[in-house]
Amino acid sequence: MKRPTIADIARRAGVSKGAVSYALNGQPGVSEATRKRILAIAQEIGFNANSAARALSGARARAVGLTLCRPARILGIEPWFMGLISGFEAELGAQSYALTLQVVASPEQEVEVYRRWWGERRIDGVIVTDLRQNDIRIPVLQQLQLPAVVIGGSGEPSPVTQIWSDDGGAITEAVRYLVALGHSRIARVSGVPDLLHTQVRTKAFNEVCTSLGLHDAVTVPADYTGEEGSRATRRLLIGGDRPTAIIYDNDVMAVAGLAVAQEMGLSVPGDLSIVAWDDSPLCSLVHPPLTALSRDVSGYGAQAARELLNAVDGKKVGNVKAQTAHLTPRGSTAPPRN
Amino acid sequence: MKRPTIADIARRAGVSKGAVSYALNGQPGVSEATRKRILAIAQEIGFNANSAARALSGARARAVGLTLCRPARILGIEPWFMGLISGFEAELGAQSYALTLQVVASPEQEVEVYRRWWGERRIDGVIVTDLRQNDIRIPVLQQLQLPAVVIGGSGEPSPVTQIWSDDGGAITEAVRYLVALGHSRIARVSGVPDLLHTQVRTKAFNEVCTSLGLHDAVTVPADYTGEEGSRATRRLLIGGDRPTAIIYDNDVMAVAGLAVAQEMGLSVPGDLSIVAWDDSPLCSLVHPPLTALSRDVSGYGAQAARELLNAVDGKKVGNVKAQTAHLTPRGSTAPPRN
Repeated sequence: MKRPTIADIARRAGVSKGAVSYALNGQPGVSEATRKRILAIAQEIGFNANSAARALSGARARAVGLTLCRPARILGIEPWFMGLISGFEAELGAQSYALTLQVVASPEQEVEVYRRWWGERRIDGVIVTDLRQNDIRIPVLQQLQLPAVVIGGSGEPSPVTQIWSDDGGAITEAVRYLVALGHSRIARVSGVPDLLHTQVRTKAFNEVCTSLGLHDAVTVPADYTGEEGSRATRRLLIGGDRPTAIIYDNDVMAVAGLAVAQEMGLSVPGDLSIVAWDDSPLCSLVHPPLTALSRDVSGYGAQAARELLNAVDGKKVGNVKAQTAHLTPRGSTAPPRN
Repeated sequence: MKRPTIADIARRAGVSKGAVSYALNGQPGVSEATRKRILAIAQEIGFNANSAARALSGARARAVGLTLCRPARILGIEPWFMGLISGFEAELGAQSYALTLQVVASPEQEVEVYRRWWGERRIDGVIVTDLRQNDIRIPVLQQLQLPAVVIGGSGEPSPVTQIWSDDGGAITEAVRYLVALGHSRIARVSGVPDLLHTQVRTKAFNEVCTSLGLHDAVTVPADYTGEEGSRATRRLLIGGDRPTAIIYDNDVMAVAGLAVAQEMGLSVPGDLSIVAWDDSPLCSLVHPPLTALSRDVSGYGAQAARELLNAVDGKKVGNVKAQTAHLTPRGSTAPPRN
């Protein structure tokens, strides 16, 4: 159970370790025939230049880290994260970087993992998600001088590079569309309230509703899970003056909301219009398919990875604005019946 | 943008590099007060024993690898993989192992990644999914002597440790349940046909249907995506003698099948009963919630990780039988209307 070494190659080839080293490094000192034989043996037994040795000499770990601070039951179902990860992978794989993942229980544990990874030279940088107000991870990243890219800030000046998108603009478009269809009772089921991008969305939602005279507009906070999405939807639909349209902060809660409407005998879109944020294949999987705020999540991930590799290369990277989500109308929105 | 070194600690503490080394390694040669000061500085600037140096000395990489050979559009939506990954993480995290991920395009590319990871000492072992008949990865794992655990074999003797479950028994239970409800026209929409566990399921499905006299039972092959799940369902439902019950090889295709029934004006479960394989939160997210074959996917992942770490420790690990999936009846199954 031992990994192949230069000594193994030398033994198989019947040459000295020095000769193997010459051959592998393309130096003179061995005949062309011997070089070829040595390289063939190296390939056959799976020998590779040793990354540990290269790391010691100050070379890169050629890996970037991502901590996931979400309960497993959300991770297992939310397409957003896997879409993002497939985008990271597309870019990292193309540059022969690996992605190292760790699920953590709290931001405090995230910080510990960053310290360990960086100290042990396991990674060259990290991708940071779920940015909060006064996020405790940011000063630690600065202190460690650990290259990092943060996903999902507000675009304001920041000590760590942010990839952000104009969530306020997107939600404003969704509300204006529903109002144009004739809706006046519009509600929203939000994601985790202390995430920065949730706050950006709530502020913009309140502003556009006020400016359009929708004084009953309400946001019910939830946590991205189907369970809380269902609960919030029931709360909204059992009232006397129930909304005729609901905007959900993710696709999972929107699908759960659709099921609650069906369970209560309400027709979608006749009795209730539904808009999902972050379009995903899940939105097209149900009947009727859900109108959604769409953006290229995987492309967003690839962009983040690209900026991180720039930061690892020591390039100065400023905040980057990603594509704004746009409305994709499908069967779940229509003018209200009455 | 430099990682802290022993020299940095020495400079800050105003001592020699040798003194720092003594302090960090618990050797005599520095006073207790100095040792404490040095350790405090090391902690403060994020210094850790260098994993590269440890790897050179033959120590572990303390990471295991997982390649994902699935298109991004499936990855982004199938709860199975994230459930599995969260299980790996639970076990690996507890033992301070990282998980290194790479998305690949083909089994050939998977093999290349295994060679590189192992040669570069980036990982101590790999978790292998989507086992095929005559899988090209198995001989390479043997040749490299790379510790590995394969998920989803048939339980037959194998050169590489398998974690397998009795899929034949599970599908037999599902068919018998539907027959007990009164169904006689039962169909199945399968996963990718050349995966070994798909073949195990198909064989068992055919056997139980034959033994129960269901001579019209048919399996339509698909690929786990919602698109193909919809297509296969439409093919089954437009025929004259349409099935009154369909079993799907994953949750995503089952949800797509439910949407097709709704789109065609068929009631579930009145006109069509639906059973999903691999219960997940997605099955409970829709209306009606889907009857499913349930097992602890995350626990299955944790078990695989545990066996892999045993193999990394050089322990002899034989094939391990995991829990058999059991039927969880929900609102999507009932006696057929006529």
